[in-house]
Amino acid sequence: MAATQFCKINEPHRLITPGSVAIISVGIGDKDNLFSVAWNMPLRKEPPMVAILCGKRHYSYQFINETGEFGMNIPDATIAKQVINAGKISGFDVDDKFDHLGLNRQKSEKILAPLVREAIARMECRVSRIDDMGSSVLVIAQILRAEAREDYWKDGLWNFGSGLQLIHHMGGNKFAVSEKSITVE
Amino acid sequence: MAATQFCKINEPHRLITPGSVAIISVGIGDKDNLFSVAWNMPLRKEPPMVAILCGKRHYSYQFINETGEFGMNIPDATIAKQVINAGKISGFDVDDKFDHLGLNRQKSEKILAPLVREAIARMECRVSRIDDMGSSVLVIAQILRAEAREDYWKDGLWNFGSGLQLIHHMGGNKFAVSEKSITVE
Repeated sequence: MAATQFCKINEPHRLITPGSVAIISVGIGDKDNLFSVAWNMPLRKEPPMVAILCGKRHYSYQFINETGEFGMNIPDATIAKQVINAGKISGFDVDDKFDHLGLNRQKSEKILAPLVREAIARMECRVSRIDDMGSSVLVIAQILRAEAREDYWKDGLWNFGSGLQLIHHMGGNKFAVSEKSITVE
Repeated sequence: MAATQFCKINEPHRLITPGSVAIISVGIGDKDNLFSVAWNMPLRKEPPMVAILCGKRHYSYQFINETGEFGMNIPDATIAKQVINAGKISGFDVDDKFDHLGLNRQKSEKILAPLVREAIARMECRVSRIDDMGSSVLVIAQILRAEAREDYWKDGLWNFGSGLQLIHHMGGNKFAVSEKSITVE
C-alpha cells in the first residue's frame, strides 16, 4: 500500500475552524505525552494562531510550560477511540502514551515535540502566551507549520469527497461526526 | 403547528463543545445587531464560560464593549444562509439586521440583548474579560442562562435522533454538517 500523502497548508486556521477535537502532543527528548482537547479554536489568520485549554494538573502542562511547544494533531473517526483513551490515563501513570494508545510518532520539522502519524492533519505550534483560567490555562500559540492529508484537502478547505469523517466532541465518549459539506448560494 | 419546545440547559459548555458556528446577538433598547462567529469555544464548566473572537471594527464590538452582554445562538442547517449573510453586510449599513436576514427576536431573561428565535439553542452571556488580539479581541464571558430545543437534546447532550444538523464553518460559504454521532466503547 502506498504511503498516505500529506500537503503543506498555508491557511492552517481552516484546519481548526470546523471545531473538531484535537490530540495535543508534547515532549522533548526521551519523554513525551499526548492529550485530547475538544476546547480549541483559531485566534488569528496571519500569523496563524490557535488557542487550546489545558488543565494545570495535567502531566502535559509542565511540558507546554517548560518547552513552549506542542503538536496539534487532527484525528478522524478511525482513531476516535484513541482520542477518548488519551484522557483515561495520565502521563504520570504510563511510561509511553503513544505505545499505550497504539499511535506512532512522526518527527516534527520546527519543534522538538513529536507529531501523531495516524492524524489526518498536523500542526507544529510555539506558545506565545499562557492565560490563567483557574484550574486550567488558555494556551495561545503560533502555528509554525501545518500539513494535511492530500486526499482530504482541496482548494484550501477540508474535502469530504473521499471519505473524510471529522469528529467533534459532544461529551463523555460521544462524538458528532461530519462527513459532508453544504454550500450556501 | 405547535410551538417548538425549549428546555433549560444546566451544562451549557456541551452546547458549544462540538464546535458549531454561532450567531451572536447584541443590542440595547432601539438598536441591536447580529454577527456570526465560527471561532468560539467553551472555557470553563463551572461557572460556565465561553470565548468568542470579535473584530474591533465590527459594529457589534461597541455594543459588547459598552453593554458587557451578548446572546449566543446556535443555528442548524436550516438557517445556514442567514449565518453567511450576517457577515455580508455590516450593522453600520443596515437599519435592522434581524429584519434584513429574516430572523426574529426572542426576549432574553437575564440580559437586555435579544436572542434569535430561529436558533436551536440560545445562551445569555455576560462579559467578564476582553483580551486584545490585534485587529480582534477575545471576549470571555459567563453563560448566565441556556436553553435548547427539547427534541434536539437528550441526557445532557445534543441528540441526532430527530433530524438535527449542526453546522461547522469550513471557510467562505461552506459548512461541514454533522448529523449523526458515534460512541466509543
